[in-house]
Amino acid sequence: MTGAEMRALIADLYPICRSITGEGLRETLRRIAKLVPLEIREVPSGTPVLDWTVPREWNIRDAFVADSSGKRVVDFRASNLHVLNYSTPVRARMPLAELRPHLHTLPDHPDWVPYRTSYYAEAWGFCAAQRVVDALTPGDYDVVIDSTLEPGALSYGELVLPGATADEVLVSCHACHPSLANDNLSGIAVAVALARGLLALPARRFTYRFLFIPGTIGSITWLATHADVVPRIRHGLVLSCVGDAGGFTYKRSRRGDAPVDRAVAHALRHVGAPYTLRDFVPYGYDERQYCSPGFDLPVGCLMRTPNGEYPEYHTSADDLSLVQAGALEGSLALLRSVVAVLEGDGRYLNLSPEGEPQLGRRGLYGATGGAARLPGFELALLWVLSFSDGRHSLLDIAERAGLPFPAIRAAADALAGAKLLGEAP
Amino acid sequence: MTGAEMRALIADLYPICRSITGEGLRETLRRIAKLVPLEIREVPSGTPVLDWTVPREWNIRDAFVADSSGKRVVDFRASNLHVLNYSTPVRARMPLAELRPHLHTLPDHPDWVPYRTSYYAEAWGFCAAQRVVDALTPGDYDVVIDSTLEPGALSYGELVLPGATADEVLVSCHACHPSLANDNLSGIAVAVALARGLLALPARRFTYRFLFIPGTIGSITWLATHADVVPRIRHGLVLSCVGDAGGFTYKRSRRGDAPVDRAVAHALRHVGAPYTLRDFVPYGYDERQYCSPGFDLPVGCLMRTPNGEYPEYHTSADDLSLVQAGALEGSLALLRSVVAVLEGDGRYLNLSPEGEPQLGRRGLYGATGGAARLPGFELALLWVLSFSDGRHSLLDIAERAGLPFPAIRAAADALAGAKLLGEAP
Amino acid sequence: MTGAEMRALIADLYPICRSITGEGLRETLRRIAKLVPLEIREVPSGTPVLDWTVPREWNIRDAFVADSSGKRVVDFRASNLHVLNYSTPVRARMPLAELRPHLHTLPDHPDWVPYRTSYYAEAWGFCAAQRVVDALTPGDYDVVIDSTLEPGALSYGELVLPGATADEVLVSCHACHPSLANDNLSGIAVAVALARGLLALPARRFTYRFLFIPGTIGSITWLATHADVVPRIRHGLVLSCVGDAGGFTYKRSRRGDAPVDRAVAHALRHVGAPYTLRDFVPYGYDERQYCSPGFDLPVGCLMRTPNGEYPEYHTSADDLSLVQAGALEGSLALLRSVVAVLEGDGRYLNLSPEGEPQLGRRGLYGATGGAARLPGFELALLWVLSFSDGRHSLLDIAERAGLPFPAIRAAADALAGAKLLGEAP
Repeated sequence: MTGAEMRALIADLYPICRSITGEGLRETLRRIAKLVPLEIREVPSGTPVLDWTVPREWNIRDAFVADSSGKRVVDFRASNLHVLNYSTPVRARMPLAELRPHLHTLPDHPDWVPYRTSYYAEAWGFCAAQRVVDALTPGDYDVVIDSTLEPGALSYGELVLPGATADEVLVSCHACHPSLANDNLSGIAVAVALARGLLALPARRFTYRFLFIPGTIGSITWLATHADVVPRIRHGLVLSCVGDAGGFTYKRSRRGDAPVDRAVAHALRHVGAPYTLRDFVPYGYDERQYCSPGFDLPVGCLMRTPNGEYPEYHTSADDLSLVQAGALEGSLALLRSVVAVLEGDGRYLNLSPEGEPQLGRRGLYGATGGAARLPGFELALLWVLSFSDGRHSLLDIAERAGLPFPAIRAAADALAGAKLLGEAP
Repeated sequence: MTGAEMRALIADLYPICRSITGEGLRETLRRIAKLVPLEIREVPSGTPVLDWTVPREWNIRDAFVADSSGKRVVDFRASNLHVLNYSTPVRARMPLAELRPHLHTLPDHPDWVPYRTSYYAEAWGFCAAQRVVDALTPGDYDVVIDSTLEPGALSYGELVLPGATADEVLVSCHACHPSLANDNLSGIAVAVALARGLLALPARRFTYRFLFIPGTIGSITWLATHADVVPRIRHGLVLSCVGDAGGFTYKRSRRGDAPVDRAVAHALRHVGAPYTLRDFVPYGYDERQYCSPGFDLPVGCLMRTPNGEYPEYHTSADDLSLVQAGALEGSLALLRSVVAVLEGDGRYLNLSPEGEPQLGRRGLYGATGGAARLPGFELALLWVLSFSDGRHSLLDIAERAGLPFPAIRAAADALAGAKLLGEAP
Repeated sequence: MTGAEMRALIADLYPICRSITGEGLRETLRRIAKLVPLEIREVPSGTPVLDWTVPREWNIRDAFVADSSGKRVVDFRASNLHVLNYSTPVRARMPLAELRPHLHTLPDHPDWVPYRTSYYAEAWGFCAAQRVVDALTPGDYDVVIDSTLEPGALSYGELVLPGATADEVLVSCHACHPSLANDNLSGIAVAVALARGLLALPARRFTYRFLFIPGTIGSITWLATHADVVPRIRHGLVLSCVGDAGGFTYKRSRRGDAPVDRAVAHALRHVGAPYTLRDFVPYGYDERQYCSPGFDLPVGCLMRTPNGEYPEYHTSADDLSLVQAGALEGSLALLRSVVAVLEGDGRYLNLSPEGEPQLGRRGLYGATGGAARLPGFELALLWVLSFSDGRHSLLDIAERAGLPFPAIRAAADALAGAKLLGEAP
């Protein structure tokens, strides 16, 4: 998928009112399933999942605050952000003073509507621009939230691409945010594009599992119901906020030195764009659940500008204008580099380890000596030979040599072809 | 004790002529014993202690150099620094040329009197301002040191505050320097204040042992006579030069990564004032003995400006003007932070380690979601949950989170209260 | 040997046409053997050595390109660099266009003649200044290379200086380059001077083995034929490019933390001149072979300006003007410091480890106390006592103390003399 195609997917999904359960989420998954063979799972309300319980399903048809003239001053139809996500139903007339505590605003950004939720405490409320709320005059207001909270199911999407081994790479995106573009329709779009690329590969070493889930409760539900899969997860990434113009930010797994952490760091070192590496903190996205100490999975989080660190975060300003086709393409390219490392890494043995083997007679080394510098390919051969002792992986060697992984992988292939390199036991 | 009270104690002790044995040291301990229930120990001269022997007891009544007119040109009554500490007695008349080699001066600071000692080689001498010595005219001088070196005892003070466990925290101060204020009456005053604070606590986890001892021979004597206590010392600090205006300097124990080293480093990181961390060097104060390789105790040394690094060090200029009430208070506050870490640190187990437990239904997490930043208390809860895996202590977690230890300790208490945290085995 | 004497040796060897086999190499070894009792070894052509085979022996009497008037426009007699090293014989007349592909030049340095080789692919060629080649006019040229490639032997020189133990220190220089001064006649000269100094020592702890070998095939041949010696090599250094005006560059062994790596790093820290430490890379000199993973010997490479990093490298400009007597002397002095560490390092036990022993009564500590700083010798005594716990070597202690190794070694000797220090088991 091109950046423009990823951006078109984001635009298609943007208007839907998603939440951690309900039709909005389900419709989002259905649209993703048109692009990749996604399975849509449903877990009934009330199901115990780890320390939590799958909540009742939330659906909403309409919501507004209308003034005494009947004019909708806050209107769900204009933006689904206007309703406190997971609001209980309400239908009442009340004076402004009584309504006021139910209105969430952003005083520092008076034209933006905040995104607020109340999933686990029953409440109703509206989110509105500070400017709008300031303009409300005393008097009675009609308050309507036409929502339902009823037994139903928590939906999520799961796409499994089998590989040569049952060892898995997990890619997880939260899909519960309503009209917010960078957080996290960008993650969904890049994940779909990555999955389509993997589907097109002739062979995969790892099994890849893509999850499109509601935040927190979704990963908890998945973890609770996949005790058999959890031990097979070798590498994992949470994707979010990968469409803005910022440089990359990679937040390491709780382990800090998991292979995926090293693979992403390596890919970033050669990406030719600004990036930041951060240690794990127990706040953020669903890596919080995957990395909780009872699981401690090797799952990091790839972002551009992180959650909470751009002003438009969790506001109506996180709209389509924030998401760029080029940024999406760059994120996809980086992920493909990471996948190349994960798929191609391994430990090998130099089969002629005493002294350098005579590469020249095997056609792997130039005939004329004496030049001040060795060609890059020959240097990569020497690196692979020198450190293929069963202890160093190709990624170790690439890092030590300061060379991009594909150069080292190509050298290893050439040496294996010349019977100079074998699999480490 | 306030800074002013600590400074008053220093002023009270300042005039006494202390040495490594004798009445001056004994009187100092008696005055400390008025403030805390100190035991004064006496170890007889001649007692073998490790590689050393407790020396004869030194006492002095008077000492002077008088010119031919009978005028005292160097006078012990003016300052006890004027006599070479531990001088043998002398009563003689001699020409200036013969006297000269017995006069110690500071050419670079011609108005200051140096502090010099000769504990273990019999010698007599005077310390004087260079300016005074330069003004001496040829001629005969009366030289009197009315001292005694006789069998007696080495005195030291010991204060033991029992705790819930027999594991000990050692706080050691040298108390052998005569009229020198920062080195080390400041250490004595802060130690007394710290002890009084610990006495006032309703409970202590550790047993605290405060030592007020003569330098080198005192710690050697204590170590030689407390073979039963040595193995119980879990943490230790030598205090010296903690009253001047300089930033903090912490010299790590020989181990370098002992818990006390980490606790002090943590406290310093959050002290809001300049500080320096240094690796152990085998020169300095009594940590030299505690950290000698046969003991290798986890004992560091807290100072402000270290020994030898301020011009007034070991001179008459290390007087009361160098010691500030605010600096003493700051040193005491830092030590209290260190004690809080030592008392409060521990390893715990997240009892709901698979995924995050649902903190909201336990009243530990805000109901409304979506804000860009988590309240600090909730973030501290997540840190404690995420890393309470039995391997990370609360101090580890505080360091990793970049949060002050008390915030992490409070979070741990809240989680324990909610039955989400238990003791690690 | 003085710097001037080392430079004279370089000047003596400079005109000889060396290669990886042949009379030039043999004559070079003979001249070295006049200065040190070198054994000259001969390994027959065709001998299998690891993955390689000892090649036929190359000898050359004359070579030139002459124009139609008979004038030699490229002449081996003027510089042996003019012939592609290991050229097959040729005697032909050919037009310029046919000759051209056999002419090697340096377009960026039009007055310099490059050094090029073709050891393992049969070829003939000439190396010439770009300016000379550009001036050639169309027409026929007489091309003569009066060389032979015939069964013979590979020669190398070996000097073994027995020590108290069979453990060995290897010093290896390549001796195959023709008229190139810094690379590597400088290495040869400094190695000879180092060997003469070691010969003059009354005793040596280690056995020292100096090799003067052709690059790559020489070290491979030596490794293949000394399987008994290889396991005894405790430390090793390859020497090259040690005569230019640049700062030192030390390239660590593949292990990276071998004792020789630490010894050289220590010596460099105290050398008082600029230096650079680099990690091992599998390109360079014969350390490539010694450090190949099947051997992984603790062999580093000492240089000033490294191979390929000075413009004159592998050109006619690497001549005697590049090599300075002072630089050679500095390189020799550094190597002597390294040898002092290797010879003198060891682990000891403080025999009085509980508290500090009383150094004063043993005459090792000044009688008068109180000065702001301890004399350096006394401080070194304290360092050795504090860390001689069987785990820290004297080099460890010197590094930790920031003191030069000889100061720590002298302190250890004094303590051993006072029965305060013993050998660690």
